[in-house]
Amino acid sequence: MSLPTHVTLCDVGPRDGLQNEKQLVDTAVKVELIHRLQAAGIRRLEATSFVSPKWVPQMGDNAAVMAALQRRPEVAVAVLVPNAKGMEAALPTRPDEIVVFTAASEAFAQKNINCSIAESIERFAPVVAQAKAAGTKVRAALSCALGCPYEGDIAPEKVGAVAAQLRAIGVDHLGVSDTIGVGTPRRVQAALEQALKHFPLGEVSGHYHDTYGQALANVYASLEVGVATFDASVGGLGGCPYAKGATGNVATEDVVFMLNGLGIETGVDLDALVDAAAFISEALGRPPVSRVARALLAKRAG
Amino acid sequence: MSLPTHVTLCDVGPRDGLQNEKQLVDTAVKVELIHRLQAAGIRRLEATSFVSPKWVPQMGDNAAVMAALQRRPEVAVAVLVPNAKGMEAALPTRPDEIVVFTAASEAFAQKNINCSIAESIERFAPVVAQAKAAGTKVRAALSCALGCPYEGDIAPEKVGAVAAQLRAIGVDHLGVSDTIGVGTPRRVQAALEQALKHFPLGEVSGHYHDTYGQALANVYASLEVGVATFDASVGGLGGCPYAKGATGNVATEDVVFMLNGLGIETGVDLDALVDAAAFISEALGRPPVSRVARALLAKRAG
Repeated sequence: MSLPTHVTLCDVGPRDGLQNEKQLVDTAVKVELIHRLQAAGIRRLEATSFVSPKWVPQMGDNAAVMAALQRRPEVAVAVLVPNAKGMEAALPTRPDEIVVFTAASEAFAQKNINCSIAESIERFAPVVAQAKAAGTKVRAALSCALGCPYEGDIAPEKVGAVAAQLRAIGVDHLGVSDTIGVGTPRRVQAALEQALKHFPLGEVSGHYHDTYGQALANVYASLEVGVATFDASVGGLGGCPYAKGATGNVATEDVVFMLNGLGIETGVDLDALVDAAAFISEALGRPPVSRVARALLAKRAG
Repeated sequence: MSLPTHVTLCDVGPRDGLQNEKQLVDTAVKVELIHRLQAAGIRRLEATSFVSPKWVPQMGDNAAVMAALQRRPEVAVAVLVPNAKGMEAALPTRPDEIVVFTAASEAFAQKNINCSIAESIERFAPVVAQAKAAGTKVRAALSCALGCPYEGDIAPEKVGAVAAQLRAIGVDHLGVSDTIGVGTPRRVQAALEQALKHFPLGEVSGHYHDTYGQALANVYASLEVGVATFDASVGGLGGCPYAKGATGNVATEDVVFMLNGLGIETGVDLDALVDAAAFISEALGRPPVSRVARALLAKRAG
């Protein structure tokens, strides 16, 4: 079984990672982090979120972050957009991509976005249309695609059903998100196969949390079904709101280490990436949760 | 591709895990840990090591541990034996298995056991013969089978060559050990395939360190080539002597979580295993490094 020869990594640390931080992070630190990621070879990233600062105060500096970024033509910068109002605020900052989101679990949708899955998609339809009219690519993050804190295991067919609805409103790319990190390799493959019924191979990505240590095994299993785009978070930024003290997003360094070992191109410089992890970890005042960052930083310290 | 339906886990925490602890652990704590592992459904474990207490003071209570164990007929208890003298001390304690060891890297063998690989095997030959005469099964741990801190990557053919020599002196079982945790899935499969040229499928196991977070991906890749026996360490006990602060043995809980998700039988009760991880972590005064233990303990704490 041959694996993809090239993988695209989207670093979600500046958005999905930092949004969980209670202490406000300086805009300058966020911008420096993104610049370091770009310099390390990251070519897709989530920079910020245009949610209400009442919901997520950490992302209140969204427009300032976007304004301060030294954009590079080869780097696609995405921002999260929760609704039409967020879209209005986001568009003037010229994101390359917007990210909309729903869930594969009805209970999760109700508890987190206060509507059904179908309603959330209906509400996003005009936002997607507006983005497309502006020439902006639209990604959808499908939360709880493997399991839900309220419903437990999610059937792969549910992923397929919601994928079809998202495709129908014009979404370009689907991120299959294991929000609570309970997925294991064969179940991840089954979920991806459902997504691939409605999106082309290059437009399906895996977004795996490492809460139970399964993320890299799931990335490997995803490669086996041809998926070659993954979200990851520098330094493993981003905890798990459903289990305090547990791990959230898979660390970008850990993914790059595995892909390097598999001989798969990422364009990312592992040492520069570990430097970026060390930078943000120091700014946050705690060591990175990434195993690769910890091991390489310990080796450097001798 | 079908995976094995049943996996046997050997918990090496009481030996490989605890031997790295500077502070002496009470014999009673070690024995209680082993009893808890047995109660959780672990059916193979490494209880202690008959090395000189000058080298490894932590294992100085080896005979006392073995004497205090409530043995169960269904549990195979292994002890590490470095030489003929260790074998003399080990045999009266009636281990079900002894573990001898060498390396796939000449540089590592020289630095760690002060002889060549060939010399180490020659020295173990009478020990193996003695064990076989006593009806004791012999496992060999092949260190640095994927990479070496001095030589870098190890060619899979080197694993095959040493495996052949170990088989020739009567070793029953080969443990392919990624001592420094640098292996990635395809390289692990290549090393295992070399081992399988000389040992039957049921007598090859994977021993993976999680230093770079690769261990579970490597377990999954091993299942794909049919290997169904793995070492793991409760709570992820055992650091990495080559990078202080980095992770060592893969945590048994993390492996069980993945195997449960894959529908593979282990006979291990995950909750009871997490209890055992919590017990030893409390005794050592620090949280487990296992992602599953951390997440499940955080969930229990609410």
